[in-house]
Amino acid sequence: MIELTREELLIASKINQLKEAAGSHSPSIFTIAEQLPDLNIKVDACFLSNPYATDLFIDYFKRELIDTSRLRDFLEYYPSQNEVIADIIGSSIQVGNDNIMVGNGAIELIQAVMHRFVGEKVIVNIPTFSSYYEFARNNTQVVFYQLDKNNNYELVVDHYIEFVKLHKPDSVVIINPNNPNGGYLQYEKLRFILNNLKEVKNIIIDESFMHFAYEDDELSLISATELFKEYRNVIVIKSMSKDFGIAGIRCGYAVMDKFKVTELLKSGYLWNSSGLSEYFFRLYRTNDFYRDYEVVRKKYIQETQLFFEELSNIQNIKLYPSMANFALIELLDGTTSSQFVSKMLIKFGVYSRTCTDKIGLNGEFVRVASRKIEENRLIIDAIRDIYG
Amino acid sequence: MIELTREELLIASKINQLKEAAGSHSPSIFTIAEQLPDLNIKVDACFLSNPYATDLFIDYFKRELIDTSRLRDFLEYYPSQNEVIADIIGSSIQVGNDNIMVGNGAIELIQAVMHRFVGEKVIVNIPTFSSYYEFARNNTQVVFYQLDKNNNYELVVDHYIEFVKLHKPDSVVIINPNNPNGGYLQYEKLRFILNNLKEVKNIIIDESFMHFAYEDDELSLISATELFKEYRNVIVIKSMSKDFGIAGIRCGYAVMDKFKVTELLKSGYLWNSSGLSEYFFRLYRTNDFYRDYEVVRKKYIQETQLFFEELSNIQNIKLYPSMANFALIELLDGTTSSQFVSKMLIKFGVYSRTCTDKIGLNGEFVRVASRKIEENRLIIDAIRDIYG
Repeated sequence: MIELTREELLIASKINQLKEAAGSHSPSIFTIAEQLPDLNIKVDACFLSNPYATDLFIDYFKRELIDTSRLRDFLEYYPSQNEVIADIIGSSIQVGNDNIMVGNGAIELIQAVMHRFVGEKVIVNIPTFSSYYEFARNNTQVVFYQLDKNNNYELVVDHYIEFVKLHKPDSVVIINPNNPNGGYLQYEKLRFILNNLKEVKNIIIDESFMHFAYEDDELSLISATELFKEYRNVIVIKSMSKDFGIAGIRCGYAVMDKFKVTELLKSGYLWNSSGLSEYFFRLYRTNDFYRDYEVVRKKYIQETQLFFEELSNIQNIKLYPSMANFALIELLDGTTSSQFVSKMLIKFGVYSRTCTDKIGLNGEFVRVASRKIEENRLIIDAIRDIYG
Repeated sequence: MIELTREELLIASKINQLKEAAGSHSPSIFTIAEQLPDLNIKVDACFLSNPYATDLFIDYFKRELIDTSRLRDFLEYYPSQNEVIADIIGSSIQVGNDNIMVGNGAIELIQAVMHRFVGEKVIVNIPTFSSYYEFARNNTQVVFYQLDKNNNYELVVDHYIEFVKLHKPDSVVIINPNNPNGGYLQYEKLRFILNNLKEVKNIIIDESFMHFAYEDDELSLISATELFKEYRNVIVIKSMSKDFGIAGIRCGYAVMDKFKVTELLKSGYLWNSSGLSEYFFRLYRTNDFYRDYEVVRKKYIQETQLFFEELSNIQNIKLYPSMANFALIELLDGTTSSQFVSKMLIKFGVYSRTCTDKIGLNGEFVRVASRKIEENRLIIDAIRDIYG
């Protein structure tokens, strides 16, 4: 069990205060650095994003915008309307532009869908990303489906279908891979669910971490967007922040039936994008960028899987199986997640996330992100030092 | 009266089609250039934005972000939450951070206010910016207050107050200076209105063009934000796109009673900003930037007023008094606005805006933006050539 020195306890208490003030989202590394300037922070293992993809984007950004005069166009002028950007995205993902809604980050689309389409009853699996229940309107009943700890918080398809049929919701939410555990539902299992839940009005599938998952040796990309073509009650929500490492640009889109897109646009979304978001989506559909992106996506997946393997060999912690770019770790030796996070941050400069705010987790849990290989090394060394 | 050649008529018809497809917002210059590649477009006089401020922002952007390693922080990481950015804005405009809501452009806040706060009845003055009536929910009654053409579409305070008292709305909208005519309501007149309409729940004041208005020889900045401190039913909506020339970044904020901010945040706004928007707001509060901005703001106002003076001397058109960065021009010789806009674009490369979609205008109107001095020269020369 980890013990904190008296000095560490004082800092830990400050970290806990910041965490509480931040609610369901961990305080950013900038807030931590500002409030605790004496810390020597080396790795932000709270931040779920492919850093190699950020490198790649910045390369393109500098070459295409800074070294030319094009930067001005994207800063000075209004971005295009939904229709134009939807057309650009549509050519990347092979979906009609009238089925695509762009958002200032996926979060704007989560809000829109939760406010307008979920109806009177929605089933949300827990533990999960809190906005899916926090954004529900007062007149929407949120029914939690508790994922089974004994099954590593992974979805048991038959049991889930039975639960949904019993509760007859208007909508269900499936985050795949799920956050905070990284549990992954294979494509054919998802199809099976869709096939059995045709009577549910909206099947909301959040694929924000999908680019980190794989089902074959080629690490091919998979997406429920294909299933949308068969099952029109599907709404796919996709953040570009994680896989492309560009959370600051706020890029996201949703794929849904076209009458839903029309309804959203009619209710008032104009310029629900930005110049840089439009630049990203234009880049995203070019062959050059996509080829380069595939390289960094696969490299990152491979390093992440090695990182998980090393973590799984450490005593006194349990690593949950993850197909995302983060790992859920359960502390088995009586250490609290707050003690763990504080020790890691104060002694090793590694900022990780407690999961005390996550409903549906039973035990002491922390979540660590996979970062660049040398940062992952520091994370492993720190945990090994604590538990070694 | 302007006459179009046969060739020009064909292009004009294409322009009209694009205009119709764009609804209440004119097609962007990029769309026009893409669809009509043979045109030699020299000036975008549809675009309402201070180009000198864009120059200034890009200078800072390059110096502070590109020439250092800071760019990555703003692209890779999530922007701060509302509270942090509100605090930064608050220190610029001397308002408490709990009274400020940030938006991905003012348009997101117009949507939020129209959906959540306006209530059952709202009075909107016409002609005006269409989103204020287009975004109203089905269960909100929009009552139009027709601005009097004989008074240059400027607000007559006593008549307006009487109208509002008669209709007893939950909310009223005042855009100051108004779009599309640039009509300006002086600070003391606005105070008089507020003082007489205390029973109206929300007085929405959109100040997106306010930095171009002035009441003294110093061209001092004025804002209804001061009046919010006295009248808590005021909601100030502020776009930064026009005065700072950064429409692509999507920066806006609203000032309102803190219970309204709390209600919005509770309903689900997370990262309702972006990395570059946060960068802008951080820059906005620095003394250096602000001092430089004041120079380009005043230079632009002075050039704009000279531009208006020259326009006012042209025969067969009527220039409406404007305190914004655009002028509403009425065509008095029987020329239609579509003929005018087409001729200007095809023969002179000047893209201006018909106002056929604006309800509440009676006659043939076009709107031209003030741009850089050399562009304004081209606009004047083109109109003089047509009417000279």
